[in-house]
Amino acid sequence: MNKVEMTEAIVVAKAAKGVQWQEIAAVIGRSDVWTTSACLGQNTMSAEEAQQVCDFLGLGPEVVTALQVFPTKGFGPTIPTDPLLYRFFEICFVYGPTIKEIINEKVGDGIMSAIDFTMDIDKVEDPKGDRVKIVMNGKFLGYKKW
Amino acid sequence: MNKVEMTEAIVVAKAAKGVQWQEIAAVIGRSDVWTTSACLGQNTMSAEEAQQVCDFLGLGPEVVTALQVFPTKGFGPTIPTDPLLYRFFEICFVYGPTIKEIINEKVGDGIMSAIDFTMDIDKVEDPKGDRVKIVMNGKFLGYKKW
Amino acid sequence: MNKVEMTEAIVVAKAAKGVQWQEIAAVIGRSDVWTTSACLGQNTMSAEEAQQVCDFLGLGPEVVTALQVFPTKGFGPTIPTDPLLYRFFEICFVYGPTIKEIINEKVGDGIMSAIDFTMDIDKVEDPKGDRVKIVMNGKFLGYKKW
Amino acid sequence: MNKVEMTEAIVVAKAAKGVQWQEIAAVIGRSDVWTTSACLGQNTMSAEEAQQVCDFLGLGPEVVTALQVFPTKGFGPTIPTDPLLYRFFEICFVYGPTIKEIINEKVGDGIMSAIDFTMDIDKVEDPKGDRVKIVMNGKFLGYKKW
Amino acid sequence: MNKVEMTEAIVVAKAAKGVQWQEIAAVIGRSDVWTTSACLGQNTMSAEEAQQVCDFLGLGPEVVTALQVFPTKGFGPTIPTDPLLYRFFEICFVYGPTIKEIINEKVGDGIMSAIDFTMDIDKVEDPKGDRVKIVMNGKFLGYKKW
Amino acid sequence: MNKVEMTEAIVVAKAAKGVQWQEIAAVIGRSDVWTTSACLGQNTMSAEEAQQVCDFLGLGPEVVTALQVFPTKGFGPTIPTDPLLYRFFEICFVYGPTIKEIINEKVGDGIMSAIDFTMDIDKVEDPKGDRVKIVMNGKFLGYKKW
Amino acid sequence: MNKVEMTEAIVVAKAAKGVQWQEIAAVIGRSDVWTTSACLGQNTMSAEEAQQVCDFLGLGPEVVTALQVFPTKGFGPTIPTDPLLYRFFEICFVYGPTIKEIINEKVGDGIMSAIDFTMDIDKVEDPKGDRVKIVMNGKFLGYKKW
Amino acid sequence: MNKVEMTEAIVVAKAAKGVQWQEIAAVIGRSDVWTTSACLGQNTMSAEEAQQVCDFLGLGPEVVTALQVFPTKGFGPTIPTDPLLYRFFEICFVYGPTIKEIINEKVGDGIMSAIDFTMDIDKVEDPKGDRVKIVMNGKFLGYKKW
Amino acid sequence: MNKVEMTEAIVVAKAAKGVQWQEIAAVIGRSDVWTTSACLGQNTMSAEEAQQVCDFLGLGPEVVTALQVFPTKGFGPTIPTDPLLYRFFEICFVYGPTIKEIINEKVGDGIMSAIDFTMDIDKVEDPKGDRVKIVMNGKFLGYKKW
Amino acid sequence: MNKVEMTEAIVVAKAAKGVQWQEIAAVIGRSDVWTTSACLGQNTMSAEEAQQVCDFLGLGPEVVTALQVFPTKGFGPTIPTDPLLYRFFEICFVYGPTIKEIINEKVGDGIMSAIDFTMDIDKVEDPKGDRVKIVMNGKFLGYKKW
Repeated sequence: MNKVEMTEAIVVAKAAKGVQWQEIAAVIGRSDVWTTSACLGQNTMSAEEAQQVCDFLGLGPEVVTALQVFPTKGFGPTIPTDPLLYRFFEICFVYGPTIKEIINEKVGDGIMSAIDFTMDIDKVEDPKGDRVKIVMNGKFLGYKKW
Repeated sequence: MNKVEMTEAIVVAKAAKGVQWQEIAAVIGRSDVWTTSACLGQNTMSAEEAQQVCDFLGLGPEVVTALQVFPTKGFGPTIPTDPLLYRFFEICFVYGPTIKEIINEKVGDGIMSAIDFTMDIDKVEDPKGDRVKIVMNGKFLGYKKW
Repeated sequence: MNKVEMTEAIVVAKAAKGVQWQEIAAVIGRSDVWTTSACLGQNTMSAEEAQQVCDFLGLGPEVVTALQVFPTKGFGPTIPTDPLLYRFFEICFVYGPTIKEIINEKVGDGIMSAIDFTMDIDKVEDPKGDRVKIVMNGKFLGYKKW
Repeated sequence: MNKVEMTEAIVVAKAAKGVQWQEIAAVIGRSDVWTTSACLGQNTMSAEEAQQVCDFLGLGPEVVTALQVFPTKGFGPTIPTDPLLYRFFEICFVYGPTIKEIINEKVGDGIMSAIDFTMDIDKVEDPKGDRVKIVMNGKFLGYKKW
Repeated sequence: MNKVEMTEAIVVAKAAKGVQWQEIAAVIGRSDVWTTSACLGQNTMSAEEAQQVCDFLGLGPEVVTALQVFPTKGFGPTIPTDPLLYRFFEICFVYGPTIKEIINEKVGDGIMSAIDFTMDIDKVEDPKGDRVKIVMNGKFLGYKKW
Repeated sequence: MNKVEMTEAIVVAKAAKGVQWQEIAAVIGRSDVWTTSACLGQNTMSAEEAQQVCDFLGLGPEVVTALQVFPTKGFGPTIPTDPLLYRFFEICFVYGPTIKEIINEKVGDGIMSAIDFTMDIDKVEDPKGDRVKIVMNGKFLGYKKW
Repeated sequence: MNKVEMTEAIVVAKAAKGVQWQEIAAVIGRSDVWTTSACLGQNTMSAEEAQQVCDFLGLGPEVVTALQVFPTKGFGPTIPTDPLLYRFFEICFVYGPTIKEIINEKVGDGIMSAIDFTMDIDKVEDPKGDRVKIVMNGKFLGYKKW
Repeated sequence: MNKVEMTEAIVVAKAAKGVQWQEIAAVIGRSDVWTTSACLGQNTMSAEEAQQVCDFLGLGPEVVTALQVFPTKGFGPTIPTDPLLYRFFEICFVYGPTIKEIINEKVGDGIMSAIDFTMDIDKVEDPKGDRVKIVMNGKFLGYKKW
Repeated sequence: MNKVEMTEAIVVAKAAKGVQWQEIAAVIGRSDVWTTSACLGQNTMSAEEAQQVCDFLGLGPEVVTALQVFPTKGFGPTIPTDPLLYRFFEICFVYGPTIKEIINEKVGDGIMSAIDFTMDIDKVEDPKGDRVKIVMNGKFLGYKKW
Repeated sequence: MNKVEMTEAIVVAKAAKGVQWQEIAAVIGRSDVWTTSACLGQNTMSAEEAQQVCDFLGLGPEVVTALQVFPTKGFGPTIPTDPLLYRFFEICFVYGPTIKEIINEKVGDGIMSAIDFTMDIDKVEDPKGDRVKIVMNGKFLGYKKW
């Protein structure tokens, strides 16, 4: 069972059971973002986590195994047209050089890691219209000299 | 004076005066991220803000005018190779579908606006290695039916 | 049942029944454009709307469910060669900067939303040759400062 | 003087005089959209129109000539990152197949011309937030058989 | 039955019967070029034409229906490597600006329609080596002012 | 003097003299299409032809030389957005496979040469709207076996 | 049976019989390069050649027919990553302008045909390491004037 | 002086002196193909070769130096539209898999080197039309195992 | 059995047996990197090596045969989004010109072969965080003159 | 002075002084690879390092400043045609999945950092032909869970 089939099996089981990602996340004590990313085939669960998720959703050993496989990550270098996805690329295009200036100035020559990295996504209620708040937190890695 | 020349003039004046983006931002009472984005030609200052920045940096009326021009935004659809910039595209490729799942489930069918949008970037000191924290906050816009 | 299979089922049922999009739209009290876009897998119906459409077309519960799934929208970043579709990209290439000048001047620095957005398409009879009239109406979103 | 230099000369003169596109359009009795597109180098003025615009803006014979040259149109096949411009490509990607279905069903197998074509852009005031309204009107051309 | 399956059915039936495109064209009183383009899924036959072609080739009602569907046209924006097909793109690259100069000068600012358009293709016998002659005839559409 | 500078010099001289491409062509006894293509830097004149054209337009020896240089041909593999140019690519995309079928069936397995090739472009007056007629004539080259 | 299936059938039969391309070529009295290109679906055999090849390899009438179909040639415009294939593109990139200079100077303004064209490929034994020798021979076609 | 300026200087001097590439090649005892490639900035001359070429063409020490610089080779990954250049890419697309089959079968798993490589280009007179003959000769490199 | 199916069969058998790549490599006395590359379809085993690997993993004669087929190598020219894979492209983009300078200066004008080439990959334990060490070793090939 | 001008100034001064990269590296006690990368504008020197390099090469304060600016890194996402540079992309395409398998198996789910990273490049003399040895050493970063 590959990662695509695994994701389909999980999404169907999740819909059948009528649960949300954060309920699945609670089963293994992880955040909803990380748990979703692993179920979508972008991160790797431990054997115990995989078993707990599959027990909760009523899925078999093939899914347990597939959740532990190291994935090939990312959906290819094409910029997507889905408006929700595209807005994040737009933020990169419009604010990318600003982010670089600010990180360089505040921390130095290096990068924010996308591996030693966490992300949280929340709804912020607002009488003028609800908002979405995303917090990214990555380790700063300075360029090594040798 | 176009936006590219404007940015060069500001960067030179900033270096000569030896100030940081947040000092410039303090002059106009805005965040460092937004102020930097306007100085890099991606956002538009009011006449008063533009005048204050130029008074502070010792720049002439051409720069004051250029800061008020509505820009054509974004650096083109090519994915950059600079490692700091690329990591944000990598986050989009690896976590994009996860972000979509979470926003859809928590808020509904729609997008997080990249226009009615704010961003903060901070250094987080950590004994295991400093970290970078980025907070994005955008209005949720639901798809209209008609 | 995914969105592609859903669309095929609807198109076949529509042809079999010999109805037009606006007749389907009338069943749910929506415009023909929005109704078509939902049937083509680009917008999301409520449970009630989905049920009414499927009752009208004689389609089963799988289609009712599929019409309510939040879609991944847009047909990819490739510019199509179909002449009818291409003409709209041509309008963007030829008149895009003009549209930007006019909106900026009349309303300010911001965008016309493609989410809080409606569109109508009509035939205009004309003795010199019929014409097509398209009306787009989107919320103006001004760039936020912070 | 090529079209790029012509546009720069017009934009500078327009700013110096402090007029809007619709005031320039009124001088020649054309719409603001068409007049702007000609000044941006995408359409062709008659000798009389070109002379009137240049008299109004105080521009010399080089601009008068340049406004009458048949342009090479469109800004290339790259999809732009400017958010205002991009939203129109997004509309094409999300609603393109819907537009095709509706035009085919209402008028037949053919296209809406982008040449025998007019467009109007207006601000629509709205207490919940102003809106932008765009009306496109193009001749229907049916595919010829032979 | 989609357009690809329709084309395969026609090509097989044509080979089995051992006829040429112009014999099929003669059945409906159309040119061989147009008839071929419709059989390849790029143009639309009337119900009568579709029936006559299918009667002639011994094809069933599914093909009759498929020939009447409005197609999504063109084989995508990739430039093909087949030498016969590529030569026509080469003509566009080498002679495109020349064609524009000549049409602009002889007829004015506008285009040659590819919709209200006919094409004929013939073999021209020549003792120094046979030649191919292609005649394109499209309506001139002048850019509209408004 | 390179080909781009050569073309600019010719176009300026042509406008100053107020002549059309076919008048320049008549000077050397060639067609207007071929003469224009050579002046746009896509074909090569003989020394005599180059001298005659330059004498007629009052251009100096640098242009005479440049017209005789073997050019690097074609404007690159990008598909242009100018509507007049694009229509010819559209014809290739929509009718390309049809052209291949017809040439293969009428002449055999091979190509129509774009080198041993001529083209004529004419305005055809028509009370329902003028038309453009383009005739292409290229040598058939059959694939060699060995 | 399409060309891809035809090639697979031939390759399997060739391996089963344990013969080399030049043995197949000898059956029809053609070169190994041309024979291989036809078996890979890039050239067209006569009915007699196709029959002889299939008799030799023990293949049925479907393959005989498929070998006679006029192919759509070339494997698309993407530059391949296989090192053996890539080296030939590298030769084009590094030596292309040199080839153009030499052909233009020695023969004139025109091209080497890739249609009226033969190629031979041989191993050249060499004590310092064997070499590969490729001979291309194509008709020179001069650009036609008209 | 960079490689582009070097090439321009050589081409001008060559035209002024009225010599051909093979005459320049004779001065240094190299082939015309290699000598041309070095003058076009794709290969590197020794100090002695560079001096001899510049003495012959009357060029100064800047060109002598530039001819000895190790170049960055190849004109980028874009497939050119010049017909002479394109035909070689067409040969790669149409005959590439055939070349791979033949080299693999005759010599083994490996490549023909494009570095330890020579090429000769000659005109072959033929009463039915002159031909171009190109001979490539590259070292076979077998894939190493370890 | 093609190379993709072969790889799947090997990966499943390897997981079932619970062995690592270096255990498979030890069976044939090759490095783990080369053995893995052959099992992933990028290099070619001898008949003996293929038999030993398949005996060890309990795989049948189809896999033995497939391991000996000369592969078409490389996964296409698209730059991958998987972070582990991408980092190596990033090294090429950031350090490529540096590598060229150093090799040219230390060894001369030529390349490091990727064919007569070996690579080793090892984990280096480090108290501050483990590291990965990759050693590439390729034959230097100097550009040939002729 | 930007990074491109800085590199040109350094390369000219280096050639005038007749020194090699490793002599420059020795001045600051760094490796030749890192020193070269900083001089090519891909890494950042400290004030002291920049001063020492410029004292050694006789360069002024503009270069000292430019060497300390944080660069935008990498030469864009286009795959280069220079054969030396291309071979490293070929290694990525051919051995990329193998590298991923080996690192995943030996170290776990994560990446080799290209930031906390060193590289050494050496010539290895060999009687059968000299070789190039490249050693890459990067920190392993495991994917974080949260």
